Amino acid sequence: MTLPLNPAMAATFAPPVMEARRWLDGVTFPPDRPLLNVSQAAPVDPPPEGLRRAIAEAAMNDPAAHLYGPVLGLPELRAEVAAQWSAAYGGAIAPAEVAITQGCNQAFCAILSTLAGAGDEVILPTPWYFNHKMWLDMQGIATVPLATGASLIPDAAAAARLITPRTRAIVLVSPNNPGGVEYPAETLRAFFDLARAHGIALIVDETYRDFDARSGAPHDLFADPDWQGTLVHLYSFSKAYRLTGHRVGAIVADARQLAEVEKFLDCVAICPSQLGQIGALWGMRNLSQWVAGERDEILARRAAMQGAFADLPGWRLMGCGAYFAYVAQDTGLPSPDLARRLVREAGVLMLPGTMFMPAGDPAGAAQMRIAFANVDRAGIAELARRLAGWHP
Amino acid sequence: MTLPLNPAMAATFAPPVMEARRWLDGVTFPPDRPLLNVSQAAPVDPPPEGLRRAIAEAAMNDPAAHLYGPVLGLPELRAEVAAQWSAAYGGAIAPAEVAITQGCNQAFCAILSTLAGAGDEVILPTPWYFNHKMWLDMQGIATVPLATGASLIPDAAAAARLITPRTRAIVLVSPNNPGGVEYPAETLRAFFDLARAHGIALIVDETYRDFDARSGAPHDLFADPDWQGTLVHLYSFSKAYRLTGHRVGAIVADARQLAEVEKFLDCVAICPSQLGQIGALWGMRNLSQWVAGERDEILARRAAMQGAFADLPGWRLMGCGAYFAYVAQDTGLPSPDLARRLVREAGVLMLPGTMFMPAGDPAGAAQMRIAFANVDRAGIAELARRLAGWHP
Repeated sequence: MTLPLNPAMAATFAPPVMEARRWLDGVTFPPDRPLLNVSQAAPVDPPPEGLRRAIAEAAMNDPAAHLYGPVLGLPELRAEVAAQWSAAYGGAIAPAEVAITQGCNQAFCAILSTLAGAGDEVILPTPWYFNHKMWLDMQGIATVPLATGASLIPDAAAAARLITPRTRAIVLVSPNNPGGVEYPAETLRAFFDLARAHGIALIVDETYRDFDARSGAPHDLFADPDWQGTLVHLYSFSKAYRLTGHRVGAIVADARQLAEVEKFLDCVAICPSQLGQIGALWGMRNLSQWVAGERDEILARRAAMQGAFADLPGWRLMGCGAYFAYVAQDTGLPSPDLARRLVREAGVLMLPGTMFMPAGDPAGAAQMRIAFANVDRAGIAELARRLAGWHP
Repeated sequence: MTLPLNPAMAATFAPPVMEARRWLDGVTFPPDRPLLNVSQAAPVDPPPEGLRRAIAEAAMNDPAAHLYGPVLGLPELRAEVAAQWSAAYGGAIAPAEVAITQGCNQAFCAILSTLAGAGDEVILPTPWYFNHKMWLDMQGIATVPLATGASLIPDAAAAARLITPRTRAIVLVSPNNPGGVEYPAETLRAFFDLARAHGIALIVDETYRDFDARSGAPHDLFADPDWQGTLVHLYSFSKAYRLTGHRVGAIVADARQLAEVEKFLDCVAICPSQLGQIGALWGMRNLSQWVAGERDEILARRAAMQGAFADLPGWRLMGCGAYFAYVAQDTGLPSPDLARRLVREAGVLMLPGTMFMPAGDPAGAAQMRIAFANVDRAGIAELARRLAGWHP
């Protein structure tokens, strides 16, 4: 006997990263051709020793590190984000406008829940970040796809034509996952103006902001004196500080909206992990120079990707930045078949474009995402060699 | 300008524990009458040194402690729960039937999401655990209250009359929060049979199982060879191992149901905190004797509560066990007013029954919850003295 399933949950697709991991089952990788895993945007090394020590010392000596904290996070961490973001974006962000979450995925679920329920609509540019789509599906919220075409940059005028009375939010990710493109400041401004004109939210997920190739603020939206009426900003501490296993993210939004977020988080979290927050705070206070070095390394890898793919028959970079390259492939195979064959025949794990696209969209079958940030320059050269040497 | 709110979220009440904390704002407590906080079921001391050291050493020396883990939790921890639960409940529970979550609240949200969506119904005995009610409200799921009367023990025959074609689950908490009562094995069996007969889920939240006053298994439901078709069990590592700030809980359910849970957790969690899981696993492997001592102390405090309230005019214990006493009060004040007055005039913070009851249910106004587990026997005597000496 089995229990009946919530139909919205049953209709939601399974976690792509877990599915891709299962493709590795039963495959052996010879020592001279080890697996090149470019499937997930996750640091593979631990954080610097100072940060690890800060966590370890709190675990030993700070009783509060083991106890419940405030639902919306440690006040010191909220204040630090508010101060650093105010300076970085040239705006006024108060500590009460910052909430800490158990990772940036949870930040998205929490803020979305305050804005939209079953029967509402949310606009996502395609290719999208699959966890956004999954959450909307399981909540019974309709996803309205906004095709971005060859540039991977969404167009606000095209989005305007998709807005209906049920639209509650537009979600942008910049630098983009999976696209690897950095949205121009004018693009973000155009979407902000569009959302404001319609009284809906513009959610900007800046998980990869620390690895943006441009200098200075990526947009000036926080400089608007009433940014709270339109803008929601999401952030992850996972990438910059290598804290993926601690689950720490943030929402910057109107304090009134965060009072609703507090209800959601009280139910799904109670509070973020205290040790993770202690680590994130230590990182923000001590690692800016180290993060700058990390960014330099990622930018060097990006350049290596651009070089390696400049002349790779059958493969073409559509976007390349932050952690990701999004590539067009003309091997003649649909990307899900290609992805599985590459595991077995080239020792490479990457995700097919179909995981980031509406079912049936032909673009997905011709595209792949490569999370190159985990692979050093020698690994990127090896990746290109394996792809060049592989044929269907 | 403000953004429109999701009406289901706007209609959800604010987190009661956070609201109660705000009652403390601006109140000073003289040194000879410090605050007695009996509002939240949370250990106030850190875990034992060995567990703290296990976490600290992992933070320093185990790179995997900082990286993403599997969505459904560390395989070793899932296997440990399966093995210990199989032995404790006299049943067969496989590691694949255990999922680790970021706390037991999240366990509830996750499993509920796989069972019910907007428009469905779930039966909750009253007084209920408020986070269960909040989650149902924000998801647009109708809560069907099941009054338990003076015994605080729900009746399966009464529940049977509440089942409709939209009912998806019955939720029981034993030992009960807020009631402090331990449900008899026959009660749990009767609900299991009822749920099975209707093809709906019986969710049993056993967060406080480690402090049950009875010896042996509290029920034999896992001995049913097809428990997976009806039973869902929830657990928290927070209380037994003092890990509230790490957020570690568990779901035991059909592996097919956990495949749906995995979708939910991939969106709201990605994975549980690795350090919290490492601490929980160390605790399960090393602290059984220590937890037994903790239980003895809680049972001694329970006896102290029973003694102190045996002859306390205006106050009567309805239930007393695990972490909680649920009391009837006839001060003449509605419980929300009484709660606020006790903060200012007696230096005592406890939660009013209205926080655990449907709006307008008169029982809530006459009842209070006392989370006594944090207060030692001297504190319990002092609590009784203050209540005896206070008059409206």
